[in-house]
Amino acid sequence: MIKYITAGESHGKGLTIIVEGFPTGFPLSEDYIQEDLARRQRGYGRGGRQLIEKDRAELLSGVRHGLTMGSPIAMFIPNKDYVNWGKVMATEPVEDPGNTVTRLRAGHADMPGTIKYGISDVRNILERSSARETAARVAAGAVAKRFLQEFGIEVHSHVINIGGVRSKYEHPVDWEKANASEVHCIDPLAEAEMIKVIDQAKEDGDTVGGAVEVVATNVPIGLGSHVHYERKLDARLALALMSIQACKSVAIGEGWEAADLPGSQYHDTLEPIAEDGKAPAGPYPTASGPWHRATNRTGGIEGGMSTGMPLITRFSIKPIATLAKPLPSVDLVTGKTVQAHFERSDVCNVPPAGVIGEAAVAFVLADAFLEKFGGDNIEETRRNFNSYQKTIGPRSWAVTDA
Amino acid sequence: MIKYITAGESHGKGLTIIVEGFPTGFPLSEDYIQEDLARRQRGYGRGGRQLIEKDRAELLSGVRHGLTMGSPIAMFIPNKDYVNWGKVMATEPVEDPGNTVTRLRAGHADMPGTIKYGISDVRNILERSSARETAARVAAGAVAKRFLQEFGIEVHSHVINIGGVRSKYEHPVDWEKANASEVHCIDPLAEAEMIKVIDQAKEDGDTVGGAVEVVATNVPIGLGSHVHYERKLDARLALALMSIQACKSVAIGEGWEAADLPGSQYHDTLEPIAEDGKAPAGPYPTASGPWHRATNRTGGIEGGMSTGMPLITRFSIKPIATLAKPLPSVDLVTGKTVQAHFERSDVCNVPPAGVIGEAAVAFVLADAFLEKFGGDNIEETRRNFNSYQKTIGPRSWAVTDA
Amino acid sequence: MIKYITAGESHGKGLTIIVEGFPTGFPLSEDYIQEDLARRQRGYGRGGRQLIEKDRAELLSGVRHGLTMGSPIAMFIPNKDYVNWGKVMATEPVEDPGNTVTRLRAGHADMPGTIKYGISDVRNILERSSARETAARVAAGAVAKRFLQEFGIEVHSHVINIGGVRSKYEHPVDWEKANASEVHCIDPLAEAEMIKVIDQAKEDGDTVGGAVEVVATNVPIGLGSHVHYERKLDARLALALMSIQACKSVAIGEGWEAADLPGSQYHDTLEPIAEDGKAPAGPYPTASGPWHRATNRTGGIEGGMSTGMPLITRFSIKPIATLAKPLPSVDLVTGKTVQAHFERSDVCNVPPAGVIGEAAVAFVLADAFLEKFGGDNIEETRRNFNSYQKTIGPRSWAVTDA
Amino acid sequence: MIKYITAGESHGKGLTIIVEGFPTGFPLSEDYIQEDLARRQRGYGRGGRQLIEKDRAELLSGVRHGLTMGSPIAMFIPNKDYVNWGKVMATEPVEDPGNTVTRLRAGHADMPGTIKYGISDVRNILERSSARETAARVAAGAVAKRFLQEFGIEVHSHVINIGGVRSKYEHPVDWEKANASEVHCIDPLAEAEMIKVIDQAKEDGDTVGGAVEVVATNVPIGLGSHVHYERKLDARLALALMSIQACKSVAIGEGWEAADLPGSQYHDTLEPIAEDGKAPAGPYPTASGPWHRATNRTGGIEGGMSTGMPLITRFSIKPIATLAKPLPSVDLVTGKTVQAHFERSDVCNVPPAGVIGEAAVAFVLADAFLEKFGGDNIEETRRNFNSYQKTIGPRSWAVTDA
Repeated sequence: MIKYITAGESHGKGLTIIVEGFPTGFPLSEDYIQEDLARRQRGYGRGGRQLIEKDRAELLSGVRHGLTMGSPIAMFIPNKDYVNWGKVMATEPVEDPGNTVTRLRAGHADMPGTIKYGISDVRNILERSSARETAARVAAGAVAKRFLQEFGIEVHSHVINIGGVRSKYEHPVDWEKANASEVHCIDPLAEAEMIKVIDQAKEDGDTVGGAVEVVATNVPIGLGSHVHYERKLDARLALALMSIQACKSVAIGEGWEAADLPGSQYHDTLEPIAEDGKAPAGPYPTASGPWHRATNRTGGIEGGMSTGMPLITRFSIKPIATLAKPLPSVDLVTGKTVQAHFERSDVCNVPPAGVIGEAAVAFVLADAFLEKFGGDNIEETRRNFNSYQKTIGPRSWAVTDA
Repeated sequence: MIKYITAGESHGKGLTIIVEGFPTGFPLSEDYIQEDLARRQRGYGRGGRQLIEKDRAELLSGVRHGLTMGSPIAMFIPNKDYVNWGKVMATEPVEDPGNTVTRLRAGHADMPGTIKYGISDVRNILERSSARETAARVAAGAVAKRFLQEFGIEVHSHVINIGGVRSKYEHPVDWEKANASEVHCIDPLAEAEMIKVIDQAKEDGDTVGGAVEVVATNVPIGLGSHVHYERKLDARLALALMSIQACKSVAIGEGWEAADLPGSQYHDTLEPIAEDGKAPAGPYPTASGPWHRATNRTGGIEGGMSTGMPLITRFSIKPIATLAKPLPSVDLVTGKTVQAHFERSDVCNVPPAGVIGEAAVAFVLADAFLEKFGGDNIEETRRNFNSYQKTIGPRSWAVTDA
Repeated sequence: MIKYITAGESHGKGLTIIVEGFPTGFPLSEDYIQEDLARRQRGYGRGGRQLIEKDRAELLSGVRHGLTMGSPIAMFIPNKDYVNWGKVMATEPVEDPGNTVTRLRAGHADMPGTIKYGISDVRNILERSSARETAARVAAGAVAKRFLQEFGIEVHSHVINIGGVRSKYEHPVDWEKANASEVHCIDPLAEAEMIKVIDQAKEDGDTVGGAVEVVATNVPIGLGSHVHYERKLDARLALALMSIQACKSVAIGEGWEAADLPGSQYHDTLEPIAEDGKAPAGPYPTASGPWHRATNRTGGIEGGMSTGMPLITRFSIKPIATLAKPLPSVDLVTGKTVQAHFERSDVCNVPPAGVIGEAAVAFVLADAFLEKFGGDNIEETRRNFNSYQKTIGPRSWAVTDA
Repeated sequence: MIKYITAGESHGKGLTIIVEGFPTGFPLSEDYIQEDLARRQRGYGRGGRQLIEKDRAELLSGVRHGLTMGSPIAMFIPNKDYVNWGKVMATEPVEDPGNTVTRLRAGHADMPGTIKYGISDVRNILERSSARETAARVAAGAVAKRFLQEFGIEVHSHVINIGGVRSKYEHPVDWEKANASEVHCIDPLAEAEMIKVIDQAKEDGDTVGGAVEVVATNVPIGLGSHVHYERKLDARLALALMSIQACKSVAIGEGWEAADLPGSQYHDTLEPIAEDGKAPAGPYPTASGPWHRATNRTGGIEGGMSTGMPLITRFSIKPIATLAKPLPSVDLVTGKTVQAHFERSDVCNVPPAGVIGEAAVAFVLADAFLEKFGGDNIEETRRNFNSYQKTIGPRSWAVTDA
């Protein structure tokens, strides 16, 4: 139903984004998008680039007088650093373009990219494979988030692991606390440890990875589908999250560890709601639908569809492959061992990964939402959504029969 | 480039599969497909259904005199048990169709499915969400495997966790040993423990989940791409694997745990190949490309592209949601607590999950392979493939410049 | 939103169809599908095959007790003639498979197909490129027609040209009359001439082409979109119709000839509806929306969206390329001139083309309909549709503002 | 394989284009793209806007030092007139945004657009449905043309009808002559008449439509496919052309009229090539493949595949719907008859339509080309292409067998 595409190199003129397929009539502003772009740039362990560039996406089309028009939404995020890269990254031919990069960094797209595309200047690969592109995804995701907000759906994240230091937390998570933390972690003890780990890595010329959790709340029952593998909500979330630069694993709810539990302890049993229509107290106090569940190990997805419980995804990202103390590598041209190429880089990318993960999750949810509810105008979508929600309110046993 | 679609209900007439987009001229037979269908039905912990039904996919079109024709390949796997379900699953209206299912099983598509689709007989959901559909995927995957075999690419799997019992193993894995094991596990100690865990679960009326590893070998460098998120090989693998019934997490290489390692210990450093053109001994003796790597934590994918190292994916599956000793649940019509509906089921689905995972991985690889190499006839594809491979042989530093 | 895929060769076991994405809960039966399959087989000028085979699509999945289940709908149309072709079309290798076809028929896929796919037996191409496949499309289209019927949308066709004989007609067309005609033509004078033309062609060992008009009525305002080229309703219809075997041109409304008219005579001016809410008499008496138009040269599509007027498409089909008196051609192996290969064939395919065109149009409309209105259950789709229709009833000036 | 997306409103900041999926390493410059943008702006009957704005697409990404990088190619065409529209088209909310448009123009997206999207200011529709967007398509098409040029494939067009005046011409067409003509017509007599028709329409406050022919030469045999309807080259061309603003019909070769011919006169019979390897003289002197055809009524496509003959498409466009002497229409708010809204417009859009058609055809061909030949680097694509071409050279009867 909806799609987005990004363009742009890390040191080129900027990032271009086109988002297509959203209905007309919901509010969208550069300031709104700015908030997530700024959150992406924050985070302990970020390097110098984040200080010199404050990203801002200019709205080029698709929005008029503060409201979406239904037409494709184009955005542009200029690279402020481009002034220093004009010759190296010129679109037109230049004389004496300067040094080419030939040292291959393990863990990057460098090696498979140069081979696949048959090129000898690694820059032609690394400029696009750079995590710089995630700023464009955050801008696209902000459109989806703003749309979902019209229906009370929120998408948040927090850091659950940095360099092996795990956060201890329970749901519901206090999102303000996560945002206030320098490492987006709500566990103060872990937060302190994480900062130490980052500091140590910096001192060592090393890098650290970790993991984040992205949670969407107020997701209605029934987004996605069980009927065909490409329609499954979890499968689509997995694609969106795994496509994030450096991501190496994706889980839905208690994904990885839950393999250890027997069925009797894993599944989130359904319980009737009390006579007064109220769900019992507990970590998931709001029943989303006619039933209650005391647990949510399944992460809000059963059979490829949302259950109405908080939708929980987790993903891990590997440590940054560009080390200040470079790893041994090989030169593309000579075939000899060299130190890997070093370009200004961060020590830890985990805190921003959460913001990028939110964008990925939000886009998939908005897509599945429009697939189910249709509508070309936000009011039409709302009408359709509300009429569906009425059929499944708490204690509504009168399910429509097909 | 290629796609497949499956149809069919668990107790309906059978499963229909159409596979589209493969080149003409490579061998394909019902017997070949049969092998994987049989492997899917094996495995300790499988229930009665696997014994009464020996699945066989009939080739209906797209193959002539043993070779693919280029036209869509249709297959049909009859449900031998359908004779007993003719009335319940009749496509035409029947008088007195009999009992409807109204008890919702947590962990299944039952609850979100009935709400989303607005239906009151859970059977209309559970028949399609059933893991029976995975037989169809295995048939589709077999076409992809047969195609990849033309290029020496193999896809195998083994079980690495059942109910918390983890296999201890090193690469390269002995695939014959894995296939010979009742639980598809190559670690004899773990195998014995796993069988105990399954037996105990059966005794308890419980179920167990686990995890498998799927490994593709001889994958050429450069399948997938870093340029656009939907082209990334890891992202496409994640969708394919997460869409498998009961899958809750997907990892590429050392996915989940690797979040704990610093960059200096995680990345698979590149090393020149020795003067004699031979790669050093070790777990990865065959250098795929002009360089060698002693480790493969990244699982054979960097920057969304295959590196030529063994392509390693792992995924976990939750314990089966249908327990012999049913979990408490809610009735869709009355809203009261009931025991969940029980229909003949297995105790442990982990061994067959490997075969299904192989199918999922093989299909993604075949798609990315054809994307890069094109070709409408297997000889044309081979010509294109060989001419690319020549540019990257060991010690070939003369990389074509773009 | 929805898709279909067909498989099967002309003399193979049969045609397999999978239709995916329709909501649950609307009626569908083999008898309903049968009606269009039978209409496709009728028509003056059809050859012997249509007499020996009465096509019937068996529903294999996706329908239960007469209602759609939401899961993919698989159908199979057996080729009754397969008994005579078992060896020639065997999926497994056979000894002495018999004659290969090497004579190339101009106007068929034979030449480009053998070159593209690198094969030397033309049968591997002609079996799939045959118009036999259109039976599968008609079955897929019947699902779409049945769905649209729930919303009062009907799709009909009539023949407007055979071999240069043009039908004189005005809208609205009497569809029963069209169906009753041996050549699906509502103009009795033209009908008689068309039959003569067909008879003469038969006598000459020749073939004739022609053109049909497909009309969809009660299409709501606003299917398709102007925002992106792939969303345009006319573009999607053009793909669907041009993909029909032998189709060489597609027009929307007064497509081809209208290039000659000045703007002042071409455009369908909008008029207010009379005070009594009734539209004036005329060929288009039913105002679809708050306004009336006396003409419909644009064929019910403006800006890539339906206008609510009858949606009119026309397409021409070239004369059948297989002539009883074969055209001179070239042998694929010897390179010498030969008479083209002749296989049992019809003289005129125009009457069935209308039925196939209806299927193509219906599928596109159902897709665009679900895109706009969403819904997983026919009642949900209906709710959404009705609430939209309420906003645009005749004389409803209170348009919702975005 | 490749795709493009455009964004931008007629009087907004500009048009944004992203083109994705082309291989790395072929030349692309702003000057090259500029040529077609300038050709689109020329043509007798174009209004004032074309004089004040000389479109130029800025390359924002995907090209480095004059060569494509493989990464998405973003372009931006600023609207020079935007300075006068800053308030009306502001993306942010403005006080007193000024007049809204409520008069509906028949023949435009105005009526179905406002109803579908539920909006009361027609500007929100007309800004995107405007033919201004075709400049973006021409830019996208220029990338495809530049790619095809690497393989000798050229795409040209000429005007064959304006307001009922038809060009008399034969193939091969002299493209320089077409480009030199003020109305892109190679028949001098028709050209003079066409100009008169345009002058008269201008005097009358009227508009005129017409038709163009787009011809691609040196297209290899076998692009597209017969195996599945979405793969057919003619179907994909039909979508691309019908999606052009104002297009109402699309034909392949002798599309519409050919319905009148019997098979014996329609089909392009295959002939052996003379002993000396030379094709006979005639309109199609260059044999594309091992055989010769004296005619090309089928327009270079058989069975959904290119035949190697010139690929000929034709399409008609309706007269512009915005007349200087406006048509009667209806006000969206009052429901009363009004004169339609008039905004600066042209009298005749036919000459530029040819350039837009070239872009549409080029993009489809590039897509089908990459589908068949693959390759990530232009040299790899070339290698694959050349090795295929070798198998089908004139007089090469040694066809590979599958």
